[in-house]
Amino acid sequence: MTRAFYIGRFQPYHNGNQYVLEQIAETADAIVIGVGSAQLSHEKENPFTAGERILMITGSLKRIPIPVYVIPIEDIKRNALWVAHVRSMVPPFDLIYSSNPLVMRLFAEETIPVQSPAMYERELHSGTEIRRRILKGEDWEQLVPGPVAEVIREIGGVERIRQIARDDCDVNDCSPDRWL
Amino acid sequence: MTRAFYIGRFQPYHNGNQYVLEQIAETADAIVIGVGSAQLSHEKENPFTAGERILMITGSLKRIPIPVYVIPIEDIKRNALWVAHVRSMVPPFDLIYSSNPLVMRLFAEETIPVQSPAMYERELHSGTEIRRRILKGEDWEQLVPGPVAEVIREIGGVERIRQIARDDCDVNDCSPDRWL
Amino acid sequence: MTRAFYIGRFQPYHNGNQYVLEQIAETADAIVIGVGSAQLSHEKENPFTAGERILMITGSLKRIPIPVYVIPIEDIKRNALWVAHVRSMVPPFDLIYSSNPLVMRLFAEETIPVQSPAMYERELHSGTEIRRRILKGEDWEQLVPGPVAEVIREIGGVERIRQIARDDCDVNDCSPDRWL
Amino acid sequence: MTRAFYIGRFQPYHNGNQYVLEQIAETADAIVIGVGSAQLSHEKENPFTAGERILMITGSLKRIPIPVYVIPIEDIKRNALWVAHVRSMVPPFDLIYSSNPLVMRLFAEETIPVQSPAMYERELHSGTEIRRRILKGEDWEQLVPGPVAEVIREIGGVERIRQIARDDCDVNDCSPDRWL
Amino acid sequence: MTRAFYIGRFQPYHNGNQYVLEQIAETADAIVIGVGSAQLSHEKENPFTAGERILMITGSLKRIPIPVYVIPIEDIKRNALWVAHVRSMVPPFDLIYSSNPLVMRLFAEETIPVQSPAMYERELHSGTEIRRRILKGEDWEQLVPGPVAEVIREIGGVERIRQIARDDCDVNDCSPDRWL
Amino acid sequence: MTRAFYIGRFQPYHNGNQYVLEQIAETADAIVIGVGSAQLSHEKENPFTAGERILMITGSLKRIPIPVYVIPIEDIKRNALWVAHVRSMVPPFDLIYSSNPLVMRLFAEETIPVQSPAMYERELHSGTEIRRRILKGEDWEQLVPGPVAEVIREIGGVERIRQIARDDCDVNDCSPDRWL
Repeated sequence: MTRAFYIGRFQPYHNGNQYVLEQIAETADAIVIGVGSAQLSHEKENPFTAGERILMITGSLKRIPIPVYVIPIEDIKRNALWVAHVRSMVPPFDLIYSSNPLVMRLFAEETIPVQSPAMYERELHSGTEIRRRILKGEDWEQLVPGPVAEVIREIGGVERIRQIARDDCDVNDCSPDRWL
Repeated sequence: MTRAFYIGRFQPYHNGNQYVLEQIAETADAIVIGVGSAQLSHEKENPFTAGERILMITGSLKRIPIPVYVIPIEDIKRNALWVAHVRSMVPPFDLIYSSNPLVMRLFAEETIPVQSPAMYERELHSGTEIRRRILKGEDWEQLVPGPVAEVIREIGGVERIRQIARDDCDVNDCSPDRWL
Repeated sequence: MTRAFYIGRFQPYHNGNQYVLEQIAETADAIVIGVGSAQLSHEKENPFTAGERILMITGSLKRIPIPVYVIPIEDIKRNALWVAHVRSMVPPFDLIYSSNPLVMRLFAEETIPVQSPAMYERELHSGTEIRRRILKGEDWEQLVPGPVAEVIREIGGVERIRQIARDDCDVNDCSPDRWL
Repeated sequence: MTRAFYIGRFQPYHNGNQYVLEQIAETADAIVIGVGSAQLSHEKENPFTAGERILMITGSLKRIPIPVYVIPIEDIKRNALWVAHVRSMVPPFDLIYSSNPLVMRLFAEETIPVQSPAMYERELHSGTEIRRRILKGEDWEQLVPGPVAEVIREIGGVERIRQIARDDCDVNDCSPDRWL
Repeated sequence: MTRAFYIGRFQPYHNGNQYVLEQIAETADAIVIGVGSAQLSHEKENPFTAGERILMITGSLKRIPIPVYVIPIEDIKRNALWVAHVRSMVPPFDLIYSSNPLVMRLFAEETIPVQSPAMYERELHSGTEIRRRILKGEDWEQLVPGPVAEVIREIGGVERIRQIARDDCDVNDCSPDRWL
Repeated sequence: MTRAFYIGRFQPYHNGNQYVLEQIAETADAIVIGVGSAQLSHEKENPFTAGERILMITGSLKRIPIPVYVIPIEDIKRNALWVAHVRSMVPPFDLIYSSNPLVMRLFAEETIPVQSPAMYERELHSGTEIRRRILKGEDWEQLVPGPVAEVIREIGGVERIRQIARDDCDVNDCSPDRWL
């Protein structure tokens, strides 16, 4: 019985994430998905709450025939404690899938096996690109599973991204307390 | 479509929780379960990590025919922000089930509908009683669903509870930094 | 020009506080009032939010003819930093009035002058006694200035104290995450 | 009875803020002013403590004939909790005045009415411009109410801004721990 | 080369600690001493700052012929992360000496070797007993190494303990914000 | 008896730090070294843990004939409290050596004497330059004391810096939760 761990911010969840998880589902017996930076929302780079992202992911993974755990992971901002933090919040897992060098390094220093998943048209399927398209009014719905587009519409996600973007704060300075 | 919210610490998850959730499942279309004080573990009152508790709950709810979300909720220690905290971490819900007066008050002040679930032999089916029995070596397995007993055995939960109990720290003073 | 500092939790503000502040107002040119444990509310010992307490205090001090600053002070739980924390949050002051030994000690170690105000029927005029009377349905309104009773009524404060008290959590364990 | 809420960082308070508040005072019965990022000081973008900013604001608003509450608001860095945080710290209010898109969005999602105040020569009257002038030795006193200039002089604010600016840390990296 | 880890709160450091460390020094090549609850001070149970405690310890260990590292460890209040926290703050170590069951459990779950040191008249040589004697004016200096008594005298430690004790706050409620 | 305080991030400790400390050791009776941003590690700008940095420093200072205290200092991100934070964590000191304008300002506002140490080929001897050389495979060992090079080799520090650098996160966005 192999439980695999996969983590992302999912701002929003997209077809690239879906492709990777479908690959993992072919070999693992269960999947644990960490929703990173769970405490962030209503920012240009992080428009959606953890709850909204969980809804997107579970809606998209209904067809996967193995157990899937979707767990919000709040930042702790101390890299040396991050693996212990993740492990305390999710069911035990046997290996992790990640192509992020820092994530790979932190798990490797704890001697946990890491695999890099094959990516699917990475430049197109990225949260950055999708948020940019939503902001500019370009087509974005084709890049995400149907249930994701539905959640974004229901919560007024397009309007939220556009209104937040009018803020003159930059990416490191986007809390409501930062206006002039 | 009605999504119901139910929250507890689940230290551990027991037949009383199971009874309530099976009742809720008969009327709701989906259930969101918050695992409270998610950041606590290895304490007399809070022996299990959030990940271990999630495993107990999902193992016990396999037969429930509606979608179930099991989400860790870290404490924020500011009651006036607690409802907003919960709502940001979980999918949107329509009503909550709780018999805790403070939880009921906090949701009611935000005008969210609250219902008190019928309880099932409450004195017997409580985390306090089950932890006491584990500690004293009395029979406890009959008070929890099978998968819960299995998780506790696999993680060495009985030994953990007994070793922690040898600590002379009291309930408010149980961090490892508190010895003399 | 002498600015005096006075601090309390004001759960709720009462005639004893009013008496002390009227005494201070006779010698100082301005008063800075710190509302301590500002982040706490909806607890048996701390039922009211900082905003509600500020409303009680300013309503009661309308007649005082010198400038009054009412400032919420969140706990930092590090005594060695507490004086620096207070000083960063409030306008500069010249002396403090307190009869709390720890407050007196912390300011004295920073060589800030401390005076102990004359108290007014201390056992009767205490937050503890007033909260007890509200809970038990005994007469409490005579112990607080008129505007305080008005604020408590408007926000449903009596009902809040009574509902929270039904919680079986004890004083150190009153967050909503602590139920069984 | 209408209580209006207005929030800013006030680094420092200036004639543009004063203009807006005088407008609000003509229609509201009371004003609540939130001093945002209250925990920050001694940074290029945030040179003044909350206490110093409160002194600037109250000194400038002496002539306003309605009650004014000036309340420090510490950052919480979780946008989804920010409105609840603000509301717990200040007296209840009926509408907010803001031209910051994120603030407007966050309050609107909680269905609290938002109005955009008319601005007064916005480019000139901004904290950024005033801090730049102080740093460069250009005339800045005409951009702030008299009491603000007085506070800045008394606390050695000009020297503080200039000394901090010699730091080679950039705006996101200005804590004392960040030198090489 | 064996580096041993030993942790305590050292409120204050006493002959029992000294006895254990002298034993450890006979077999280890270096000792790492963690000063737990480093952020606490000016409390009945935690009267001394981390800096004061470091001074006591290093003064008492001058004669030990192997390298000694004395490191403050702030509480993190998440037991599942505590071992990772400690390990990030101190030089690498090979085994730990502790007789605290929770500390032993947490290290053992990370498969780090734990040894229980022989204790020396434990009831007499405890921080609790020494603080009690200081408070009551009984003889305490014989229970601590000479340099500890000297540090306590120099910082006015006796007066601090007595003044703090006049506070009516109990052990869980000793921050300056907790008075009535 | 003069105790001097010196603070840096020491990512890593280098010959420039060594030069300054040897100068200080000629006039002071004891040195307290604060290891700043102690909670950070595994970042491009902060690759090493506090424990690793303490090992580098103590290994390099074996020959210094006066007592040396090496103390990790976690960030608190509130400049107005930073001096109180430092003072609570380290033994009392009489003057500080720093060439960082913000550190100088914060201590000066608390009327603690500050001296600027003579620097030694500052551009060459900086953590930034050494990390750049490690990353690029250029010669860096000549810029640090021998024990520092040894620690970096033993912990796999070169590989850590290179692997982390493959991350596409920028300097303000380097937590593991920030990937796309």
